[in-house]
Amino acid sequence: MKKNYLFTLILFIIFQAAFVPANAQVEILAPGVKKISAGVPDKFTPYGFREELPMTAALGQLPAGKLPFNINDINISVNNRGVIVKIPLDTGEQLYGFGLQFGSFDQLGLKIKPIVNDNPLNDLGYTHGPTTFYLSTKGYGILINTARYVTFYCGNTDALNDHSKAPAETHKGGNSVQELYNNDNKVSGSVLVDIPGAKGIEVFVFEGTDVKNAMQRYNLFSGGGALPAIWGLGIKYRVKADFNQEQVGKMAAYFRNNHMPCDILGLEPKWQTAAYSCSYVWNKNLFPSPNTFIDTMKNKGFHLNLWEHAFVSTASPLYEPLKTRAGNYLVWNGLVPDFADSTASSLFANYHEETFVRKGISGFKMDECDNSNIAFGSHAWSFPELSSFPSGIDGEQMHQLFGLLYEKTVFNIYKKNNLRTYLDVRASNDFASPYPSSLYSDTYDHKQYIRLIANSGFSGMNWSPEVRESNSIKDLMRRSQTAVLSAQALYNSWYLKSPPWLQINRQKNNAGELMDNASTVEADIRKLLNFRMSLIPYLYNAYADYHFKGIPPFRALVMDYPDDKKTFHISDEYMIGNSILAAPLTEKEDERIVYLPEGNWYDYNTNQKYIGGKEYTIKTELTQLPIFIKEGTILPLATPVEYVGQDTKFEITCFVYGNGQTQATLFEDDGTTFNYEKGNYNIVTLLWQKNKSIVKRSGQFKNTRYMIKKWQLIN
Amino acid sequence: MKKNYLFTLILFIIFQAAFVPANAQVEILAPGVKKISAGVPDKFTPYGFREELPMTAALGQLPAGKLPFNINDINISVNNRGVIVKIPLDTGEQLYGFGLQFGSFDQLGLKIKPIVNDNPLNDLGYTHGPTTFYLSTKGYGILINTARYVTFYCGNTDALNDHSKAPAETHKGGNSVQELYNNDNKVSGSVLVDIPGAKGIEVFVFEGTDVKNAMQRYNLFSGGGALPAIWGLGIKYRVKADFNQEQVGKMAAYFRNNHMPCDILGLEPKWQTAAYSCSYVWNKNLFPSPNTFIDTMKNKGFHLNLWEHAFVSTASPLYEPLKTRAGNYLVWNGLVPDFADSTASSLFANYHEETFVRKGISGFKMDECDNSNIAFGSHAWSFPELSSFPSGIDGEQMHQLFGLLYEKTVFNIYKKNNLRTYLDVRASNDFASPYPSSLYSDTYDHKQYIRLIANSGFSGMNWSPEVRESNSIKDLMRRSQTAVLSAQALYNSWYLKSPPWLQINRQKNNAGELMDNASTVEADIRKLLNFRMSLIPYLYNAYADYHFKGIPPFRALVMDYPDDKKTFHISDEYMIGNSILAAPLTEKEDERIVYLPEGNWYDYNTNQKYIGGKEYTIKTELTQLPIFIKEGTILPLATPVEYVGQDTKFEITCFVYGNGQTQATLFEDDGTTFNYEKGNYNIVTLLWQKNKSIVKRSGQFKNTRYMIKKWQLIN
Repeated sequence: MKKNYLFTLILFIIFQAAFVPANAQVEILAPGVKKISAGVPDKFTPYGFREELPMTAALGQLPAGKLPFNINDINISVNNRGVIVKIPLDTGEQLYGFGLQFGSFDQLGLKIKPIVNDNPLNDLGYTHGPTTFYLSTKGYGILINTARYVTFYCGNTDALNDHSKAPAETHKGGNSVQELYNNDNKVSGSVLVDIPGAKGIEVFVFEGTDVKNAMQRYNLFSGGGALPAIWGLGIKYRVKADFNQEQVGKMAAYFRNNHMPCDILGLEPKWQTAAYSCSYVWNKNLFPSPNTFIDTMKNKGFHLNLWEHAFVSTASPLYEPLKTRAGNYLVWNGLVPDFADSTASSLFANYHEETFVRKGISGFKMDECDNSNIAFGSHAWSFPELSSFPSGIDGEQMHQLFGLLYEKTVFNIYKKNNLRTYLDVRASNDFASPYPSSLYSDTYDHKQYIRLIANSGFSGMNWSPEVRESNSIKDLMRRSQTAVLSAQALYNSWYLKSPPWLQINRQKNNAGELMDNASTVEADIRKLLNFRMSLIPYLYNAYADYHFKGIPPFRALVMDYPDDKKTFHISDEYMIGNSILAAPLTEKEDERIVYLPEGNWYDYNTNQKYIGGKEYTIKTELTQLPIFIKEGTILPLATPVEYVGQDTKFEITCFVYGNGQTQATLFEDDGTTFNYEKGNYNIVTLLWQKNKSIVKRSGQFKNTRYMIKKWQLIN
Repeated sequence: MKKNYLFTLILFIIFQAAFVPANAQVEILAPGVKKISAGVPDKFTPYGFREELPMTAALGQLPAGKLPFNINDINISVNNRGVIVKIPLDTGEQLYGFGLQFGSFDQLGLKIKPIVNDNPLNDLGYTHGPTTFYLSTKGYGILINTARYVTFYCGNTDALNDHSKAPAETHKGGNSVQELYNNDNKVSGSVLVDIPGAKGIEVFVFEGTDVKNAMQRYNLFSGGGALPAIWGLGIKYRVKADFNQEQVGKMAAYFRNNHMPCDILGLEPKWQTAAYSCSYVWNKNLFPSPNTFIDTMKNKGFHLNLWEHAFVSTASPLYEPLKTRAGNYLVWNGLVPDFADSTASSLFANYHEETFVRKGISGFKMDECDNSNIAFGSHAWSFPELSSFPSGIDGEQMHQLFGLLYEKTVFNIYKKNNLRTYLDVRASNDFASPYPSSLYSDTYDHKQYIRLIANSGFSGMNWSPEVRESNSIKDLMRRSQTAVLSAQALYNSWYLKSPPWLQINRQKNNAGELMDNASTVEADIRKLLNFRMSLIPYLYNAYADYHFKGIPPFRALVMDYPDDKKTFHISDEYMIGNSILAAPLTEKEDERIVYLPEGNWYDYNTNQKYIGGKEYTIKTELTQLPIFIKEGTILPLATPVEYVGQDTKFEITCFVYGNGQTQATLFEDDGTTFNYEKGNYNIVTLLWQKNKSIVKRSGQFKNTRYMIKKWQLIN
């Protein structure tokens, strides 16, 4: 493989002068990753802020792909308005990406503006987690390295000079809006990118053999996918915003007393003396002894996560130090730290390190770092795009990067302390793969939340389809099923006194009135949460694949079945790791159509076997899991624990699906430090051959987390 | 008055050097209209394309107002990103404008992007008819002369350097999203305007005594409000898109045979050989003898209006001539004419003049000249913002100006032929007051349509709340009430075989199935349409006031009652002319709350008198009109005619509301030419004094259109 790239490199060096247009330059950045640039690129870009090093060795080991066009056919032009990039597009090609898109999935034919915003705005492209990156079914990825607001025209433009005089004919329709606007013949031979204001641009090209391979290259080039702290894969519960120390303690006791799994308790705004904007100072009225409180919680196996946003109140000790390192406009009367200035980031980080991280706070929810045009009665919030910052970054670029830089600032505190975490962040952007965060939203549309899981695999981001209150118990159960089958299983009860499974209705919940069947619903939810806890070893291994191989743990079917065109439009099913296909149901559904790709599949609940390449209508009960296991899988499921402690050992049952010989792996390490980066981990290989089980363990990690208890055959 | 301005001018000349900051320049453009500019303004701007001359004499006669701040306190800064304009904003000031805004009315505290688009996108500011112009209750207007996409922050930003350290306190709320995001203390002392990409800017300042006076100044400076052809104020009906000549003839006969008033019949796309994009060639399959057809219709008192858009099909004779004078991207395979190039406009206009206008076509519906991000399944249409045009204008600027330039191109054909018209156009922009067009939309939200009538008065545009099919007969009636109380009473039946009052359901309508009570509903609609026809003389006079005095014929209450703060937020009532207050109801309502400002008012339907300054809950039947007449009004209503012909004479009854002596005027001219611009019109003054009526007629128009038949007292 490496020879192949060396050869390519030599070829490039020889032919570069001949093939590259006057102003465009091509550079090889890593195996299979190239950059073509022209003009004077911006000073502040997503790539410019990337700190994690590319996983060069892993990149070299990936099967090499080839661009379906000559890289120099990417046309970059600079004019008075900005930069235009024109990228070849073939017929039959389908495109994905642009980050956590709410309304769209396959992007061919769309006009997309991947802009950071808290409102998806009718599928214009706005999202908490945009990327200026798309992938093609022809096996490559294109990233426009800019923090400006850009527009991608995905093959829906038709240039005058490409226009051969078409036969003159009357439009066939004309009696309905749909007929008139019918545009289906309008896929042009290029993707156009409009970058107003730029004077130059860098375009990154990720080669690949297929969508997944190209995405792996993106993730590995970004620094490898993030491996969250293992407890982060458990259940997170955010308590009511006005709870005091004692009330949080009671909630913790509720979980343990009722054997409801919970790893993380999240505190909402009022733990601080000021929020909106933030003081980052414990509110002693509610939390008289925060450090004792943290320790008590830790002893009971709870990790604490603190809500905050980055807008610094005058009431904060950070206000004075950051005053000269902030934007010239305020948000909720608070400073906007200039995270593009490493000193500002350090001041912010150091304060958090001393005040919180060293005291035992395990993570943060970094809220409101997106932007809003239209929240709540047309009242926009966040800083204006015309803001300026001492570093020189402008408000538009800062909006695109603010979440990413905030995320990086907080992540680096943990990294520095050799502690892993799992964060919540409400905005991110390109090259975010190495950050152990989940994105979330207020939009609360279950179908969109499912689509976002599929889209997360193209994004280098994790998506958390959080559960708040629900319309019905069925809604609560369906949402919970999706949550436990996602990157983060989160109940956000910031405005609920009791957990939603005791009372779904917000008013009644806060009035202390529980549902008549609360204990039945609680038991049903417990089943789902226990499944999540069982899945942790499998999930953790998928995250190790994300880190070491760049394979997204949650991803659309098209990634695993690139030759199956039926998967090209499927955004309501997704893969979890290599062996589980999830097809969640929403409130109204008792059953749904599930497309199962080639191969044989087993309904996890009934063990019924299905032949792939077909659609089936499948019923899933509220306490079951809407998942299908690929034949040839060893699915290692743990006896559920109530939380993942430092010494937790998982008792594993290996479910072998099908008759053939097969294998799977588990990733074993301390779960909470970065020592795995120095090789301090084991790969536990589970083998099933000739009707016998074999367990092999290799690596430098001295402890054992997984105890393989039994094997069970399903066929 | 004039002396006052001369004095101001002299003062300016003397003090200019002293008061104006280094880079900003102040110019007096007309009485009460000033321009402050800095940097290098764009070549292509709304003002740059203005052709109509300011009504300087009328401007000089307007009561003079004074800016509540020094014009030089308008701060213009140019940086790498673009231009920022900062305009002082006082406490207690309320703002209006930004064109035909769908979701917002009073704009203080909002972030508004007045961008041409067919989708209002959750109140971001997108609309068919944006303006970069706002008005203040302190009596002035500000216009940013740019065709770029700009953002206005209407007092919702807070600058760091204005920030006096506020007392540190916990946020009071925090248990609900509303509490957390609460931003109500965040009105800052300036309006900020973000103009990315600009290198300089011109800011126009319209002085005034109040909102109305400032708006009058804007309209007069734009060239005076448009006076539509008098028949344009009648009923317009657009027939089904696939109707042939015979079917249109039958529809015309239906109107006359059933005594349903109708002045204009509109043909939809299929009259052309190609539409989407357009050929501008009669489809002889449907219209074998178009010119005979036009004449036949004309003889029956119908004006014909042709649907088109400006994207030129290869099937069009205009394709070859315009091929080198078009944008470099196509729309629906059609050319985008470079209307910023006067030769392209002339080619387009000359063809239309010869082919249609000289043959008797009375107007056009200029569709699709807006833009769409998200129409119908995420498929955007129109040319990309990155387009370039031979004139040098870019795609973004062209989008903002395309409707306006198209409108101007078509209007100029009629002007040149000394023929008045009334057009439909789906996009417009700044300085559009002199164009006799109505804007319209597909959004079809009745409440928004009412708000748009109120907002139209701040826009220099007419708004047409067109009626298509309806959810219920009540919905149809309520929508019809609004339509007859608007700038254009339009039924758009482009996908309905029969008029909606015979069958509201689209499927049944097209299946030829009429409602059981069709004739009852028809009779009810006839009542409403007849009222519209009665109102024409009054309306026409209001339009004369628009032209000569700049007073918008349809306007928000705040314009007439600037000292009544209760009117500041009222967007569901509006004034028609000087004496009628309309308060339309929507589908669900039998009654509604109506705020009546100071003075006494009469319910038009019951003649019940109400004391102003209060809210009343008032019932309005479906066949009544939700209007209130101001005490002291002489309301001249005509005996309804079925259409307004060249020789139509209106028999007028003058309704005198109240006891005092009072007067009103009627504007009398030929109704169809621009001869009134040369003084060829009469002012008919209606006087009521000492319980006697007096009618005075002054002016150069030789004919009589109004016959004052009787007087009726209401008190």
